[in-house]
Amino acid sequence: MAKLFKKDEKFFKIFGQMTVYILEAAELLGEMVRNPSKDLAPIAAKIKDLEHKGDELTHKVIDELNKTFITPIDREDIHDLSSALDDVLDLIDSTATRIVLFRITEPIHAVPEMCAVLLSQAMTIGAAVSNLQDNGRVIERCIEINSLENDADRLFQKAIAALFEEVKDPIDVIKRKEIIETLETATDKAEDVANVLESIIVKNT
Amino acid sequence: MAKLFKKDEKFFKIFGQMTVYILEAAELLGEMVRNPSKDLAPIAAKIKDLEHKGDELTHKVIDELNKTFITPIDREDIHDLSSALDDVLDLIDSTATRIVLFRITEPIHAVPEMCAVLLSQAMTIGAAVSNLQDNGRVIERCIEINSLENDADRLFQKAIAALFEEVKDPIDVIKRKEIIETLETATDKAEDVANVLESIIVKNT
Amino acid sequence: MAKLFKKDEKFFKIFGQMTVYILEAAELLGEMVRNPSKDLAPIAAKIKDLEHKGDELTHKVIDELNKTFITPIDREDIHDLSSALDDVLDLIDSTATRIVLFRITEPIHAVPEMCAVLLSQAMTIGAAVSNLQDNGRVIERCIEINSLENDADRLFQKAIAALFEEVKDPIDVIKRKEIIETLETATDKAEDVANVLESIIVKNT
Repeated sequence: MAKLFKKDEKFFKIFGQMTVYILEAAELLGEMVRNPSKDLAPIAAKIKDLEHKGDELTHKVIDELNKTFITPIDREDIHDLSSALDDVLDLIDSTATRIVLFRITEPIHAVPEMCAVLLSQAMTIGAAVSNLQDNGRVIERCIEINSLENDADRLFQKAIAALFEEVKDPIDVIKRKEIIETLETATDKAEDVANVLESIIVKNT
Repeated sequence: MAKLFKKDEKFFKIFGQMTVYILEAAELLGEMVRNPSKDLAPIAAKIKDLEHKGDELTHKVIDELNKTFITPIDREDIHDLSSALDDVLDLIDSTATRIVLFRITEPIHAVPEMCAVLLSQAMTIGAAVSNLQDNGRVIERCIEINSLENDADRLFQKAIAALFEEVKDPIDVIKRKEIIETLETATDKAEDVANVLESIIVKNT
Repeated sequence: MAKLFKKDEKFFKIFGQMTVYILEAAELLGEMVRNPSKDLAPIAAKIKDLEHKGDELTHKVIDELNKTFITPIDREDIHDLSSALDDVLDLIDSTATRIVLFRITEPIHAVPEMCAVLLSQAMTIGAAVSNLQDNGRVIERCIEINSLENDADRLFQKAIAALFEEVKDPIDVIKRKEIIETLETATDKAEDVANVLESIIVKNT
């Protein structure tokens, strides 16, 4: 893809901006889960704001595709990548919304560690997208994102096991289980970004 | 796409029929959630019937694709659109099935409003699909479907918040939460239809 | 596809190996759900091992795609099929992991039957993939997988209805419901394999 995706190419710049939003949102979510006793509504509102900005960028991609005749990679791949990035942001926002909605005020076992993995995925996605010119690099990053997803999976199982051992109130179990699961889906969506990137590399080799 | 998708084109007609089934199913589901004390099994059976008809159309699309050499848009896009429409119908049916299965006989907070949003999405999908000849129109409709999904999301959060405040029996919480979530997934699937349509427009600009 | 996918073609052989792993994993899961009082951890470990081998094959597909200039079918379809097969294996593993994690030691109503359906799907996927040369055959198998998914759906509803009737402890309900749902998702993923296969046939007709 070296020649196709120049550093100042417009889609390339939008993808870069999306990864910055994902990174910021993942950091804010980490802050929330590490400090559940704080007033979390303002942090969740900041994440919601990032999610809205992500939606705007996703629509901008569609608009630009409709105005552009020659694209650096296939039109549908640009669309798929922007949707996949948007999904990660959506799921970070869903997790944050639920934490506030369910009035979670105590730490949940293994959830801060899961958030740390999500943050690593966010950074690796950023690194992959800013190196779209370099196929080998992108593939390496994708393998890294997938391996982080395996870490997230192990932490998810640890979180669920601890939940059933430590929490006895069924309503509490329901709420915390959903936080854990939504966060796990966020890490799955990060893996989906890696899959889209791999698929783009595969087509453009 | 103006020249490609003639009003009497066979795939175009199948898609139109699918959107009619979706609309009918969404209306029936609305009836169910507004009148939970009625005998709901016969209404759920009507929805199941629409779902079966949808499956038949989805298989007909595959059959027709295998008999047709020149298609108005890419073969895989026809397949994707028919799958996405089928998914909406499936999720409406899943919601109806669960309402009967869980013996829900009382109204669930915010669920009739969520159903009203789903119905608006169904109508907008119908409008988008019947105007596949007009790219600008389809994009407008897609933005509308996405914005309806945001409404559904807010209602979903309202429903979940009310659920945890008002319902104290954990088994009841589990059942109602699943109805709310399945309905939310139906509105997500409607958004997926918009994404497939956008992607088709993007490819055919 | 007759001429394109020779019996000794490398991607064809990888797909065949994946379907063998899926079949083995489905058999092991069936053993687990039929004998919940046994020590299930060693069987779950065998399934996890198959899942890892599946991951390796999935990465091998990417590697081979990057080294291969001319592929028998579109590069992205090879990628999609290998991802879809991998998803089935992942979900079988998720179900097994949860059975151990939740310390399920008693049979769950309708779950052995659901596993039997999954096993039939696994065998049918194997038959479809080993006959990729024969479009008509593949389509037949896909219809069969879809019809098995309908069986799985009916059993899922039976399982959920029995769950709410027979189990009174909410924590138990939560755990068993998740086993039932994860297994149902596995059968959904098997249906997704059929959809990918159909889509490949449709493109290559």
